[in-house]
Amino acid sequence: MVMQFDKRSKWWGWGKEDETYNIPDPDGFWKYVRDRLGETRSRSRVKSLGDFKLRRSRLPKPDIAELRQMSGEGAVSTDSEDRAFFSLGKGYKDLVRMRGGDIGNATDAVVQPGDEQQVLALLRFAARRQLAVIPFGGGTSVVGGVEPVGDGPTITIDMAALNQVLEIDREAATATVQAGVMGPDLERPLRRSGFTVGHFPQSFQYSSVGGWIATRSAGQNSTKYGTIAALVQSVRLAHPKGILSTPNVPAAAAGPDLVQTIVGSEGTLGVITQANLRLSAMSEHRSYKGYLLPSFAAGAQVVREIMQAGVEPAMLRLYDEIETELSLALRAAPTGAAAAAERVGRWYLQRKGLDLESGSIMILGFEGSEANVRHSSEVAKRILKRQGVASLGSSPGRAWRRSRFSAPHLRDVFLDKGIMVDTLETSTTWGNYVTLHSKIRDALRGALGERSIVMAHLSHSYTDGASIYYTFLAPQDEGGEIEQWERVKATATDAIVAGGGALSHHHAIGIEHRRWMRDYLGDEGSRWLSQIKRTIDPEGILNPGKLIPDLEDSPRA
Amino acid sequence: MVMQFDKRSKWWGWGKEDETYNIPDPDGFWKYVRDRLGETRSRSRVKSLGDFKLRRSRLPKPDIAELRQMSGEGAVSTDSEDRAFFSLGKGYKDLVRMRGGDIGNATDAVVQPGDEQQVLALLRFAARRQLAVIPFGGGTSVVGGVEPVGDGPTITIDMAALNQVLEIDREAATATVQAGVMGPDLERPLRRSGFTVGHFPQSFQYSSVGGWIATRSAGQNSTKYGTIAALVQSVRLAHPKGILSTPNVPAAAAGPDLVQTIVGSEGTLGVITQANLRLSAMSEHRSYKGYLLPSFAAGAQVVREIMQAGVEPAMLRLYDEIETELSLALRAAPTGAAAAAERVGRWYLQRKGLDLESGSIMILGFEGSEANVRHSSEVAKRILKRQGVASLGSSPGRAWRRSRFSAPHLRDVFLDKGIMVDTLETSTTWGNYVTLHSKIRDALRGALGERSIVMAHLSHSYTDGASIYYTFLAPQDEGGEIEQWERVKATATDAIVAGGGALSHHHAIGIEHRRWMRDYLGDEGSRWLSQIKRTIDPEGILNPGKLIPDLEDSPRA
Repeated sequence: MVMQFDKRSKWWGWGKEDETYNIPDPDGFWKYVRDRLGETRSRSRVKSLGDFKLRRSRLPKPDIAELRQMSGEGAVSTDSEDRAFFSLGKGYKDLVRMRGGDIGNATDAVVQPGDEQQVLALLRFAARRQLAVIPFGGGTSVVGGVEPVGDGPTITIDMAALNQVLEIDREAATATVQAGVMGPDLERPLRRSGFTVGHFPQSFQYSSVGGWIATRSAGQNSTKYGTIAALVQSVRLAHPKGILSTPNVPAAAAGPDLVQTIVGSEGTLGVITQANLRLSAMSEHRSYKGYLLPSFAAGAQVVREIMQAGVEPAMLRLYDEIETELSLALRAAPTGAAAAAERVGRWYLQRKGLDLESGSIMILGFEGSEANVRHSSEVAKRILKRQGVASLGSSPGRAWRRSRFSAPHLRDVFLDKGIMVDTLETSTTWGNYVTLHSKIRDALRGALGERSIVMAHLSHSYTDGASIYYTFLAPQDEGGEIEQWERVKATATDAIVAGGGALSHHHAIGIEHRRWMRDYLGDEGSRWLSQIKRTIDPEGILNPGKLIPDLEDSPRA
Repeated sequence: MVMQFDKRSKWWGWGKEDETYNIPDPDGFWKYVRDRLGETRSRSRVKSLGDFKLRRSRLPKPDIAELRQMSGEGAVSTDSEDRAFFSLGKGYKDLVRMRGGDIGNATDAVVQPGDEQQVLALLRFAARRQLAVIPFGGGTSVVGGVEPVGDGPTITIDMAALNQVLEIDREAATATVQAGVMGPDLERPLRRSGFTVGHFPQSFQYSSVGGWIATRSAGQNSTKYGTIAALVQSVRLAHPKGILSTPNVPAAAAGPDLVQTIVGSEGTLGVITQANLRLSAMSEHRSYKGYLLPSFAAGAQVVREIMQAGVEPAMLRLYDEIETELSLALRAAPTGAAAAAERVGRWYLQRKGLDLESGSIMILGFEGSEANVRHSSEVAKRILKRQGVASLGSSPGRAWRRSRFSAPHLRDVFLDKGIMVDTLETSTTWGNYVTLHSKIRDALRGALGERSIVMAHLSHSYTDGASIYYTFLAPQDEGGEIEQWERVKATATDAIVAGGGALSHHHAIGIEHRRWMRDYLGDEGSRWLSQIKRTIDPEGILNPGKLIPDLEDSPRA
């Protein structure tokens, strides 16, 4: 039996099997890449999940039989293709292993509960039998969030059957949604009712509501709609003792906010089964425009001013000088009238002392009612004018919107060519912003060596600071891909934590960031989190090895 | 030795000794009250804190000596006046007991640590000796948050010495503030730098930053600036094991939000010593206007529409029909030109089918840059026009701003006259709003009897719902004041919880709401909170008897 995954996702890369990504100007783009990385060697991958070398399921046969009785015959799989597919996420390390057909620590069974009660029954069974459980939504984790850890048998819980938008409360502008609902399946019925959640992470098409909540996700439009932390009104969480259901109220002063203990818990405190999400009216108007700033540092100042002026852009993105350069290399070279227009544009920019290839492009988008968009645009325009910012018109905004979910596809193209590519991200306060950006960039360059590209952008802004999102490329170290990546990742993460950045702004912790948690949260914060985990999950079965710093293992414990 | 309290506050009521509250039109007002409550008998109070009958401090002499050594001779008091003052907050029950000179369970010592390290040392000492500790900021709790509970010796920690605004980060628009800073002492230096926190609870003048955070406070302008939960960027918390300091970043996806575990923890998980608060630019423009709606229900619909239109009022308040009537009775009767203007106004309202005394008054305020205020006002105006709402001009807004902090003074006046007066509050989603308002009102009326006034207003709005805030009055049951109040409070709180409202929107839980926590949070939520408490405070010394549902005591445990 093969489960639903084949309808959902390429096992070896991003998206669905029939999706491909076309680089608009491949010649120019690959020349840009070759000039920096040199020649690289194309890589092949194993042909099918059937070719994987997987150890046998460690789950005892009577347990499998009991699981089938609980959840239904077709809802339990120990099939090796299913187990392979459900054992990893979509991080660089995951893709390298999937392409090599060797995933290491495979899960021992995949179970697809039909409803919340079946999730609860499964967790109780797992607690009794000391089986680890891993909730699996869209499986797009890039931090090892769905990967089995440790020696004991592991059950992966496929949340795909909890896929209903249960209710839309038009008065309160909230929707009651099951955790397994995927992004597009959430937005479709809402749009028919004139609403949107406004949560569009890059993984939107392939990630689930439960995954967003579990990872404290931030969408591309979070500056207007809020991160998922602000969008969750209430939540239901299954764990072996029962169902925790938080009160369904707009705000309360009734102790610590349990919702915010569950948001970001990454499956370590239970399985999110359902949530009430806050909605906004669908935008009737939209305005996305591009601007050219002399530098990333100058751009960050402009972003800060806009954020502190009391307007809420739907999107505010600033590319550093390198990402600006690469974005221009990636786009289709203009021809005909567009080429003529661009020549005029470049001449105009030069007169302002700006150069497209050495500046920093900003995209600023507003959405909402026509009146709100008009007002916000005017406030922003005054700031931009005062700072002498040059407009690039609406084509950069259009280009961004067109390709907003496609960057992960490009990663597969790089992997085919033997190029390591990954992203990492953080956030910090404005005073530290440009300094931290340089520190991480320099750390990455140092770890990657001469033949590399390191670029960054700002994608989520707040009044007190913003996120920084890095993409880095280098020729793969054949045979030592994982070690190469581990070394680079460690160097960059050291720089983030030492530099006062968030350990993650929106990718979450999982396995990959876990060993920095102690430094990041401090001794007391780590102890709190560990103790909360231990008291809620004394058996230690809930997504073990993720998120929670292991104080016993730590030399400073 | 007498500690700082005498400079800070009336022990028997609200505010400072030299403050009095003058009712603009006392004859009209008292007639209104008499018509509804009948004659009541004036009550006297004990003359001074020295007249209190207090049991001796239960703290052993060697402990007192050790405390003096740790915190300084003058920072430890077992003086009975100090102990009396620091043993209660400012709830109705507290004032009744203070006025009677019999406070019951007095604290055993008041200690005023000079800095965070002294707080930590004190907590470690208390943990070793099994002494309960109660953090005390401004002491304005109306839910018993600072009252000793249980048989063991208790130390009240006066946070008054941690009173510094340590740093203003102009770039990030944040301020680093010690927990004992009182409202006005926080805003004064910020204003000089062009900033405001924008947090103005009714207790603003007499409450502290640490108290706001500990009680998950919401200010009168929270609709624009956010409740304290959104204003805290990071926080430092002392507890016996050490100092928990959360990372100083604008946003992160690094597990559960520990800040939101500390916000609302009411001293049960430790003592908040310091926080980074988010600031806004001081408002350059302000517009507060009054409107008349045909009913509270119609008004709630208008509030909902404004909140869902994507604008953020600085203040949006809607009085129900009774509170509208009483507000009009409370104001100075207009004379001369103002009286003539009001006659014209009433004629105009009548033509619209509205009557001032039987309608529902709304106050809508915008603050910020001139452009933002203008835009928001226009969006709101379109909604108000579509709903046929009548404007009352800017005098209701002015009147509200003038007396925004004075309602608690009026309570003292009522108590002098032998009238029980208290407030309680909740929040709910829009679909349940009017229904819950009626249920609580009817419950209060039923419990209070014929001779009573029950009124309510909406004061904090969200896209998904709003708060409801009740004020109720009735003749005091002489000799049975506490029992009378307990009965009324229980009936109303039962109605709130059964009706799906928040157990508290911004008063917090303390002693008074604690026994409903189990019903409110559900079995699992209660168990979580209790377990978190137990794991963080195994000695059970941190503000015991507050907030945390006691599962062992509960019949359903």
